[in-house]
Amino acid sequence: MGYNLVAMLSKLGRILQEECQIDPHRPVLVGVSGGADSLCIAEFMHASGYPLIVAHFDHKLRPDSAADAKSVANFARQRGLNFVVGQGDVSARAERSRETIEEAARAARYQFLFEAAAECDAQAVVVGHSADDQVETLLMHLLRGSGLNGLGGMPYRWLPNIWHAEIPLVRPLLGVWRAEIMDFCRQKGLNPVEDQTNQDPAYYRNRLRLEMVPFLETFNPAVRKLIWQTAQLLQGESELIASLVETAWAGCVLETGVDYVGINTEITMEYPVGMQRHIIRKAIAHLRPGLRDISFDAVQSAVAHIQPGKAFVETDLISGLKIVSEPGSLWVAEWEAELPLGDWPQLKEAACTLEINGQVNLNSGWQITARRTSRDDIPFPLSGQLTDENLAWLDLKNVELPLIVRSRREGDKFQPYGLEGHTQKLSEYMINQKIPRRARKDWPLVCSGDEILWVAGYRPAHSHQVTEVTEFAVRLSLRRSDGSGH
Amino acid sequence: MGYNLVAMLSKLGRILQEECQIDPHRPVLVGVSGGADSLCIAEFMHASGYPLIVAHFDHKLRPDSAADAKSVANFARQRGLNFVVGQGDVSARAERSRETIEEAARAARYQFLFEAAAECDAQAVVVGHSADDQVETLLMHLLRGSGLNGLGGMPYRWLPNIWHAEIPLVRPLLGVWRAEIMDFCRQKGLNPVEDQTNQDPAYYRNRLRLEMVPFLETFNPAVRKLIWQTAQLLQGESELIASLVETAWAGCVLETGVDYVGINTEITMEYPVGMQRHIIRKAIAHLRPGLRDISFDAVQSAVAHIQPGKAFVETDLISGLKIVSEPGSLWVAEWEAELPLGDWPQLKEAACTLEINGQVNLNSGWQITARRTSRDDIPFPLSGQLTDENLAWLDLKNVELPLIVRSRREGDKFQPYGLEGHTQKLSEYMINQKIPRRARKDWPLVCSGDEILWVAGYRPAHSHQVTEVTEFAVRLSLRRSDGSGH
Repeated sequence: MGYNLVAMLSKLGRILQEECQIDPHRPVLVGVSGGADSLCIAEFMHASGYPLIVAHFDHKLRPDSAADAKSVANFARQRGLNFVVGQGDVSARAERSRETIEEAARAARYQFLFEAAAECDAQAVVVGHSADDQVETLLMHLLRGSGLNGLGGMPYRWLPNIWHAEIPLVRPLLGVWRAEIMDFCRQKGLNPVEDQTNQDPAYYRNRLRLEMVPFLETFNPAVRKLIWQTAQLLQGESELIASLVETAWAGCVLETGVDYVGINTEITMEYPVGMQRHIIRKAIAHLRPGLRDISFDAVQSAVAHIQPGKAFVETDLISGLKIVSEPGSLWVAEWEAELPLGDWPQLKEAACTLEINGQVNLNSGWQITARRTSRDDIPFPLSGQLTDENLAWLDLKNVELPLIVRSRREGDKFQPYGLEGHTQKLSEYMINQKIPRRARKDWPLVCSGDEILWVAGYRPAHSHQVTEVTEFAVRLSLRRSDGSGH
Repeated sequence: MGYNLVAMLSKLGRILQEECQIDPHRPVLVGVSGGADSLCIAEFMHASGYPLIVAHFDHKLRPDSAADAKSVANFARQRGLNFVVGQGDVSARAERSRETIEEAARAARYQFLFEAAAECDAQAVVVGHSADDQVETLLMHLLRGSGLNGLGGMPYRWLPNIWHAEIPLVRPLLGVWRAEIMDFCRQKGLNPVEDQTNQDPAYYRNRLRLEMVPFLETFNPAVRKLIWQTAQLLQGESELIASLVETAWAGCVLETGVDYVGINTEITMEYPVGMQRHIIRKAIAHLRPGLRDISFDAVQSAVAHIQPGKAFVETDLISGLKIVSEPGSLWVAEWEAELPLGDWPQLKEAACTLEINGQVNLNSGWQITARRTSRDDIPFPLSGQLTDENLAWLDLKNVELPLIVRSRREGDKFQPYGLEGHTQKLSEYMINQKIPRRARKDWPLVCSGDEILWVAGYRPAHSHQVTEVTEFAVRLSLRRSDGSGH
């Protein structure tokens, strides 16, 4: 046994313990195709004393596939190892689920391996991906334009919830090169099955291995090792970012529902754009957990809405989702989603009367009250008229009683206090005041006859302002039952 | 003007404002080689009303270089723009600084551009790197095995302190493809200088452009756009991580000096391995600011020392630096660095006497005091003998007075209280107790004649333990003048 092989075996032993965290006393299920990679890891783990179950999945895609199954069965029998075999009609599955043959084969294989592992109470499913596979995975992701996560390649240990909630997929050979694996097989007298399709450059993955890697080596002979290290490094960066995103997400998200995610744009804005992209991606993933390849442009277009004062945009995002941008918040939602109204004051009926010294109850504990006050009770100068917009004083002269609290109507106009002579459309005033679009329809308006006296929580009407000559006034307030204002 | 060109110009205008943050009212220096890229950006910025200074550096590496300079001078004159030209003996510089010709040319050019910019009070130096250059930069870094930072490519705006502390280098064309640039030049009747060396595949960079990109396009025709987006994405990730690293660094670093950085391993351990790598890289960069390509293996070998209880390793790191691993701390340092002793109690002289009811002053305010106590003052059961190791009671019988406080000697042995009959080498005891290697030489030992009674701050000697039959004892304490213990 050459020095290199000794070094490789010691490395592999360390990887199994430290990176893969395999407990040497509990059973492990190894998926063995019969190829060099999987034979190598099965033989190594068996020889190292790990209790193994050998599992083989017959995809039935090649006429000689039964011979492969038999060869793996022999391998297990000779070593006194438990052997389980599965098979499935991959072509039918592909047709049913509209996957490619490769995707369907992979899905069927992993489903079998994890079911078998659960039945045997195995601690992990071990598969034989090598360091070369890792390099090819990074390159494949680069060609596809996937982000940091894809460029990090495959991890040694991964809990892919899709197949089993507790059994991890483990790939100890990620740290071992194919040449080392072949050397091991030769030394141990193992006879791997040759999969002829591995040499067919018509398959994308094979072209990566057979053409791209050698091409890159003409630029730098050490490129495989460097790319492998890059994957390792980027995996570390990716984990780092994942933990940072978790923290940021908790602070940025307003509310999530089955068909929407609300984001606080003021908080999100404070993060670098890289983090803003993650927040958007996570929101999309929340609504479309299966969606692969969330496009850069889509994410970028959503990030562009994370701006101060940017308001009232409703636009396509991706995969049937929309972006709703409002002052202070951004919603990623299904097109047909009813976004939550939040805690804004809203009328429960189209209109009702508000008696002097009476009150009107709104949603979520909001109340509008009206109180008659004499001139002496008005806190001149009327700083309150402008600074606490949840309070308004209006001259009672020329006010038609009882007051009406109603929602907006076509053609409503309003002249806010402090803007003399400037009457505007109510809809414009609401936009300028950044009342969220969804809350405008049922926003409470206190009226004298047809005239709007107060857009509750904003400015009172200029026409009825209290002045030095006011005798009696009405004091309107918008409050919640817990005492807080709008 | 075709639709695409209109779109490109609008994009470029946005990039200049938003990404490059160029103030349209302050002068900008544009480095113009005479090639299509730099002519394009100069023409576009001039036409858009930015006040420009055109700068050209003649590398004098080709016989026709003077003609290039003249062509750029004409371009500037025709538009009434200020023109500055520089030149340098690049070959001599390369020889002097042991750089390649390309490195020396680049350094000389940027030095000239930033000096000229400072003289003209320009807000930025603009250069003409294109989106294609960005793609090639990512690929070049991938082939070199650089980390996330390199894979992010070039930023639109960058403050490269090496040339000027306040003038940024700005690259607006990073968002524009070479084909768009060529189209612009044709439409505007610009006549770029052709640099024949750009077609020579003997140059690494040219091979990337002429061979690698077309090869990758056979795998995915959209690969250039995808790689460009990947660079953009990774740049965002890289910025994110940089801000996270800053925060972690502040918490992990014990102390920095001109020739060492001390890291608290207990705090650093809590971070993911990706962050641990960053801390090590930052420590190396602190001591070797010019060092490029800090190898993955070196960083990984240092990270392996960030472990609980890992102790007393002194080993090579990289570029003449060493790693010193001690319990609780890891030092990255010059081989000849004197690491700080920190606040450990240390003798100021080789030996001194300690009178009963007297004291010995150590460094940093540490003191050892000895007090005679009668049997009644001993707090039986002697929990203090084991729980507060800064206090020790010893039976005065058979103790030789005055006590001596001295540093260790060859052959010292010690039998700690609680380990009956087990005498060990003092050096072993110190290792087991994790007394930092650097602090062992002058660690205070309280002795009766030649016999060690107390390794200050640790256990007293078994042989002189106080028992039910003790009549008089000496109470030893190790305290700082501020009252805190070891």
